[in-house]
Amino acid sequence: MIITAQQLSRLDSRTRINTINSLSGFKSASLIGTVNEQGGYNLAIISSIVHLGADPALVGFIARPHTTRRDTLENILATGVYTINHIHEGIIAQAHQTSARYDAGISEFDATGLTPLITDHSAAPYVKESHIRYSLRFVEKLDIAANGTHMIIGEVSEVQLPDDSLDASGKIDLEAAGTVAISGLDHYHSTRTLNRFSYAKPDQPLCSLLTEPV
Amino acid sequence: MIITAQQLSRLDSRTRINTINSLSGFKSASLIGTVNEQGGYNLAIISSIVHLGADPALVGFIARPHTTRRDTLENILATGVYTINHIHEGIIAQAHQTSARYDAGISEFDATGLTPLITDHSAAPYVKESHIRYSLRFVEKLDIAANGTHMIIGEVSEVQLPDDSLDASGKIDLEAAGTVAISGLDHYHSTRTLNRFSYAKPDQPLCSLLTEPV
Repeated sequence: MIITAQQLSRLDSRTRINTINSLSGFKSASLIGTVNEQGGYNLAIISSIVHLGADPALVGFIARPHTTRRDTLENILATGVYTINHIHEGIIAQAHQTSARYDAGISEFDATGLTPLITDHSAAPYVKESHIRYSLRFVEKLDIAANGTHMIIGEVSEVQLPDDSLDASGKIDLEAAGTVAISGLDHYHSTRTLNRFSYAKPDQPLCSLLTEPV
Repeated sequence: MIITAQQLSRLDSRTRINTINSLSGFKSASLIGTVNEQGGYNLAIISSIVHLGADPALVGFIARPHTTRRDTLENILATGVYTINHIHEGIIAQAHQTSARYDAGISEFDATGLTPLITDHSAAPYVKESHIRYSLRFVEKLDIAANGTHMIIGEVSEVQLPDDSLDASGKIDLEAAGTVAISGLDHYHSTRTLNRFSYAKPDQPLCSLLTEPV
């Protein structure tokens, strides 16, 4: 079937949100941990993480328009630090619950039962239950004129992950760590490996990098 | 284990690329179809698609620094149109092969055996083999000072998808369409549903939206 732009614009708001949010494909499932200037912790689920580059190690995410209270964005701009924590199968319900609109004084850690992990490295809390997590230092905020959203860019300042999750190439095995993917607003998925391929070159067939069949 | 920023900076380039590319979590697996002003088609795999908003329906992706020939970016800026085509299990090898550095005159369609699908809607080619695909009109280019990359933003102008892939809420069932996820540079994954949750509210338990157990 074909959906035209005109048909899209006539959909009711909730239907259009569901369609367009799932159209972009599978998304990273993460929790952003921040701290405000009074020392209060905030935790927010985010599915708009995007890899920007490896040297320097830069990661971006999309923040909604800053026209109302936005704890995560305000905390990052105020303190300059934040953490990103992978969501695994065991914490999908608690992670989803962080999206509820809690009052300003309430920490999503307390409300959902997830545990803040404080380290010497950063004032921003990690999520103790996450298997893969990293700290960032705020670098740049880009304003997206088309809809008032913002791209927040940070440089990775520390990575914490299970001892056995790095392979010989340096790749992190997300599947072994139980990291999940999101589609749309509310759909959580585990993954299964289909294949890994060699670096592609013209006129040369791809090789599988898997050492055992899946 | 903990990897410090200093340790990250000392990794050899290839290892750091593998670690940081997988650190951001699962990514959308898509092919971008473009056309140049001479009518030549280009196809490029991209894993940096990000949902920006539903009204207007905006999708972004990250283009590498425009310091050398970048067919996809140049074609989008020249013609103002492009397509994004989901990668499904049946075309992962062909999709990965589009990342090879072909000479300027060679179309990745010809090189990989994927089929351009031309419509009245846009000058940019769809990928006929894709199950879910959409057209975009270029809206905005943001320059990321931190590493010279660019965020390319487009508005969705048409969606093509299987007849039975929209549920009552308007959500697209990516899993039924076989859409895959990517981790790192070269790892392709299928997915399995863990759960779907209701809209989260404070002091109210989440409900599962699944009508049958998975």
